[in-house]
Amino acid sequence: MSKRSAVEPFHAMDVLAEATRRREAGHPVISMAVGQPVHPAPKAALEAARRALEDGRLGYTDALGTLSLKTAIAEDYQGRHGLVIDPQRIAVTTGSSAGFNLAFLALFDPGDCVAIARPGYPAYRNIMAALGLRAVEIEANAETGFTLTPESLERAAAEAGRPLRGVLLASPANPTGTVTGRARLKSLAEYCRAQSIAFISDEIYHGLTFAGEEATALEVSDDVVVINSFSKYYCMTGWRIGWMVLPESQVRAFERIAQSLYISPPELSQIAAEAALGARQELDGYKRSYAANRDLLLKRLPEIGLSIASPMDGAFYAYVDVSRFTNDSMAFARRMLAEINVAATPGHDFDPVEGHRAMRFSYAGSAEEMTEAMDRIARWLK
Amino acid sequence: MSKRSAVEPFHAMDVLAEATRRREAGHPVISMAVGQPVHPAPKAALEAARRALEDGRLGYTDALGTLSLKTAIAEDYQGRHGLVIDPQRIAVTTGSSAGFNLAFLALFDPGDCVAIARPGYPAYRNIMAALGLRAVEIEANAETGFTLTPESLERAAAEAGRPLRGVLLASPANPTGTVTGRARLKSLAEYCRAQSIAFISDEIYHGLTFAGEEATALEVSDDVVVINSFSKYYCMTGWRIGWMVLPESQVRAFERIAQSLYISPPELSQIAAEAALGARQELDGYKRSYAANRDLLLKRLPEIGLSIASPMDGAFYAYVDVSRFTNDSMAFARRMLAEINVAATPGHDFDPVEGHRAMRFSYAGSAEEMTEAMDRIARWLK
Repeated sequence: MSKRSAVEPFHAMDVLAEATRRREAGHPVISMAVGQPVHPAPKAALEAARRALEDGRLGYTDALGTLSLKTAIAEDYQGRHGLVIDPQRIAVTTGSSAGFNLAFLALFDPGDCVAIARPGYPAYRNIMAALGLRAVEIEANAETGFTLTPESLERAAAEAGRPLRGVLLASPANPTGTVTGRARLKSLAEYCRAQSIAFISDEIYHGLTFAGEEATALEVSDDVVVINSFSKYYCMTGWRIGWMVLPESQVRAFERIAQSLYISPPELSQIAAEAALGARQELDGYKRSYAANRDLLLKRLPEIGLSIASPMDGAFYAYVDVSRFTNDSMAFARRMLAEINVAATPGHDFDPVEGHRAMRFSYAGSAEEMTEAMDRIARWLK
Repeated sequence: MSKRSAVEPFHAMDVLAEATRRREAGHPVISMAVGQPVHPAPKAALEAARRALEDGRLGYTDALGTLSLKTAIAEDYQGRHGLVIDPQRIAVTTGSSAGFNLAFLALFDPGDCVAIARPGYPAYRNIMAALGLRAVEIEANAETGFTLTPESLERAAAEAGRPLRGVLLASPANPTGTVTGRARLKSLAEYCRAQSIAFISDEIYHGLTFAGEEATALEVSDDVVVINSFSKYYCMTGWRIGWMVLPESQVRAFERIAQSLYISPPELSQIAAEAALGARQELDGYKRSYAANRDLLLKRLPEIGLSIASPMDGAFYAYVDVSRFTNDSMAFARRMLAEINVAATPGHDFDPVEGHRAMRFSYAGSAEEMTEAMDRIARWLK
């Protein structure tokens, strides 16, 4: 085995696997472990997929996706944000996972320092480790509004003793739910441009903002790599389909790497995704169901003794402090699943430093499941 | 941009993109550029997908795939090869592309030397370059039976001045069609084990052997990484679904990397793939159609002046010598597409040294297309 194969597991996926095993063994598992919407893909997406299956001939598409889907995504930016984006700047990817991997390969060489927020999405750190990049984790706390700022970047670079080559910021953020508004995005983009730092904006939870101002980094700069996905708002996790918006000059480099690493994104998912773009009414209904779940958790979790540790303004996660009950969130997660069949993710995934006293609960499930899970946890923690 | 983003394009994908543009503009394009079966996925696979769409709830699965599909793949090894494989050794991947990437990351560190055959599949070389591995390309010619041998590996390591850490061999091979039989696989596996070299066996064209002995490396050793796919024999390119068989001790390392890099393979494709495993009768019919195409090309190509440059025993490619007409296969491919709307892949993709005088024609299309393409090329070259 290689040295780099010693990356951390993505604990949420391990919890998911154990939850699946328990469910298949007949246990009444409620999964709040992964960001998996309870709702199916929009009806129009399923219908488009069904029609495509009638012909059945699904093949390789262009490596960065069909022109048809790229054009539809560009039109969506026009409709929602009033932005004119050339479809040739859109790269369709096999989920945002492919987007991150492509961005890291295209933009950075081994040893390069890339700043991310801590707590944050563990796959950032793990993919970077596998590719030889140095993740510079910057604590995002109440002082910094749970986001990154030019000052925190400046400080982190000084501490690392090396200039940053990249910054990756998610808004809404996983697991904190932080929404970084337009003004802050602008100051970050300007700082990055001035310092020749590549700015990657993870916007995969766009459409799921419950408080604060949801802005795309494309509103403040063309010199950013935007990563987005059909997994969350569009309820298409299992379809593995996402997209990027790239600076025009970078498209060909991304394409060259994608040709060999991915050949092309799945065609059926591209067809379904295009239809999903038109389903906002249905999807906004789903969003309202998450909003109700959020209200429930905002009330019940603190009552139970699990205080909310971050803004929870967007995405569909509650990041809570479990230090009243344990100093070992991994053991806590294992016991909660084994004893009351509620799956959630230990904070260690998101924060190697302080995650031992945090847990993440996804509230993308049904209202019934959320209520039942809160009841079980309340009884269990008593 | 990073230095490693300067990888070569996968020219076949560029030709595909240009062919798609021309077809959309109304030109009567025949594509022999990529390994894209003309047949749809098996009926049972399409039907299984249709049923899954009725429920519509498609989500993340375990990172290495559903137990159900892994079990079905293991049973298929039992039925076809009489091999008992623990389903836990199977890793379902997002196409074989993910398999190669995972294997390179899990097995090798930057700077490691990995031997591949030249000519060979370009994505090997390109992914390795992006990941900092050193591809040691070994000429596979008539002398070596167009395959790799312990002697050729020994010689290559001596020339490289460094020990090999890995060997990757495809059988049937792309683009040469070479089928490496059981005895040769055994001697390679034994040599690799003795030298502590990781042996990766690319078996994605299994099921498509027209001459010679098709064997899986699992018949001769458990200490191999086998990569396979539903794209070719199973006609499911656009579904992006494949699998690996791993040594038991390596499964967890592959899983850790897959969790962060891919989350999980597409669920609908996993459901369809499981059904495809039972469709051998239908698929063997498709295989007979490729066999007829192969007979046609074996006759027509040399008549036209394009002599067959390699065995053509398996897969669905004819690798031909175009040196009677050009010393620049890239320009030849461009002109052929522009002037007679026949797309094929310049040899440069497969062989950076001698590919300028070779072209690869895929014969996975329909009999009518193959005949029409041969007619057009014959007239054009006169």
